[in-house]
Amino acid sequence: MRTSYYRKLLAALATVTLTVAVARAQTDPLPSWNDGSAKIAIVNFVQGTTTPSGANFVPVEERIATFDQDGTLWTEHPVYTQLMYIFDRVPALVKADPKLATVEPYKTVMSRNMEAISKLTMPDLEKLAGATLSGMTLDEFHAQVGAWLAQAQDPRWHKHFTDLTYQPMKELMAYLRANGYKTYIVTGGGQDFVRTYADATYGVPPEQIVGSAGAVKYVYPNGGTPHLVKLPKMIVNDNDAGKPEAIQLLIGRRPYASVGNSTGDQQMLEYTKGGTGLRLSMIVLHDDAAREYAYGPATGLPDSKIGTFTQGLYDEAMRSGWIVISMKKDWKTIFSWE
Amino acid sequence: MRTSYYRKLLAALATVTLTVAVARAQTDPLPSWNDGSAKIAIVNFVQGTTTPSGANFVPVEERIATFDQDGTLWTEHPVYTQLMYIFDRVPALVKADPKLATVEPYKTVMSRNMEAISKLTMPDLEKLAGATLSGMTLDEFHAQVGAWLAQAQDPRWHKHFTDLTYQPMKELMAYLRANGYKTYIVTGGGQDFVRTYADATYGVPPEQIVGSAGAVKYVYPNGGTPHLVKLPKMIVNDNDAGKPEAIQLLIGRRPYASVGNSTGDQQMLEYTKGGTGLRLSMIVLHDDAAREYAYGPATGLPDSKIGTFTQGLYDEAMRSGWIVISMKKDWKTIFSWE
Repeated sequence: MRTSYYRKLLAALATVTLTVAVARAQTDPLPSWNDGSAKIAIVNFVQGTTTPSGANFVPVEERIATFDQDGTLWTEHPVYTQLMYIFDRVPALVKADPKLATVEPYKTVMSRNMEAISKLTMPDLEKLAGATLSGMTLDEFHAQVGAWLAQAQDPRWHKHFTDLTYQPMKELMAYLRANGYKTYIVTGGGQDFVRTYADATYGVPPEQIVGSAGAVKYVYPNGGTPHLVKLPKMIVNDNDAGKPEAIQLLIGRRPYASVGNSTGDQQMLEYTKGGTGLRLSMIVLHDDAAREYAYGPATGLPDSKIGTFTQGLYDEAMRSGWIVISMKKDWKTIFSWE
Repeated sequence: MRTSYYRKLLAALATVTLTVAVARAQTDPLPSWNDGSAKIAIVNFVQGTTTPSGANFVPVEERIATFDQDGTLWTEHPVYTQLMYIFDRVPALVKADPKLATVEPYKTVMSRNMEAISKLTMPDLEKLAGATLSGMTLDEFHAQVGAWLAQAQDPRWHKHFTDLTYQPMKELMAYLRANGYKTYIVTGGGQDFVRTYADATYGVPPEQIVGSAGAVKYVYPNGGTPHLVKLPKMIVNDNDAGKPEAIQLLIGRRPYASVGNSTGDQQMLEYTKGGTGLRLSMIVLHDDAAREYAYGPATGLPDSKIGTFTQGLYDEAMRSGWIVISMKKDWKTIFSWE
């Protein structure tokens, strides 16, 4: 009977659909995470905020997740990658203007004396940042950063910097996106610097990068098409309280989930957790010297100058119900090439 | 025979699919637009940038369209809606602090003498903006603006301001979105002001509003949860060259399509049209005094103080291949309630 055949066809299709759904549910979206409280908290958060009948359901358009970058999505030791870029640009500046070779702080950088370089002051670094990160068009800047990333290597593993991204965090971003979350990077690093590689590296497009931002100026070159030039003037300092403030400026919504790893992320994590309903604030603890680096309170080592995870921050995490992610215990894999 | 039946079923389904596709193709996505060069330019742009085999194909992630608001998406006469809001907030300020009633510029606003109000200087207006648009939390501000929009009416049609949005522009936004474009509002108006209603009114979410922005400050109230407070300090002036500059800050990509209506949009339209491939820059000419307002060069009237569409801008539009949208000729309907 035709009707019977049609029913069987529908039943067969339904079976296929069901099987796919079950297979999907059984595929671990976070294979690089060990079973433990961090992984459970993540899965509970995603299920809680995406179950339509649940008390903590969040409409898809409000699903915002924000991630710090340095020390949260990729390695920040021995120094921030952007700082390495700044130092590596100095020879090109000196070549273009040879008298800089005798002028500080260029002279120290050209000496390649790491001890002297590590003692450069904040005003020195700002001078170097201004000289290497501004004065060019956006297109020129992206080309310079892209060329550097394609060849530069880190001093420990001799990998490209974009290979020093944490596999578990990339899985977390993908898992959140698969559940309707828009993932943003909210970084103290340079917004235009991160925009150069974040889409290819993390799947985060330029319009979802919130970073420390220099001004740009719209200029009419002689006879040419108007374009934007980078100025040596910071207009967004995306650290500390600057993170929730920049989130308001660029996104205009309070995140439901945030991940950071230092005091520079404290206010973003507080702001996230301070919202109504189910919110997830997490902080990465660098406690794996063998596979990456160990610094911060859990290691008994003094706080690093950068990526500071202080005892006070740890205490706030405990008090406020933030999830502390132990790289050593929670991450099965740290880098994809391990 | 079962196989034959199955074939017939598939054929029937294919017919249904085809019919739907044909019906879709025949449904005009821009029913409020008259046939003419503006409508043709829009359809050609969308087809050109979304046809995968075409020379002007744009990957979906790069499809960015930016729209000015005042005079482009809704009526800006007799004064900007946000200015009406600012004036309407003054009585509440005076009630909270009665001595303001004798102090300028509050005294003039309280007089309801429109001639005197129209003569307020820019510093006066800035003082009023600071007093009415800052000092509160973001939540309080959105509540104040929302309550006002729910009751305030324009002086000519006695409609809510959100009803004075242009139906053809809403269709254009929807048409672009249906073709993978992300639509942004890029306005000289206040970013937080526009965010209050833009999602419900235009389908543009908070993170796609680029506006003139005041600073916010992350504060720890006594014993309460930290929150953001609006400060009387402008950090983004989203007018003129400030438009492409703010597009870079918030979006980080050059738009493929832009629509504006005044000299404040000139650089955004230039910047859009200055990109490679097929780009669409359009400018709304207010030439319909009967159905809306007439001002600017085509009307023979002197330029208005606000929403200035100068002869110079018109000449640049002609020279640069921008599409001039005549409200009178190109728009069948202006408002949805006509």
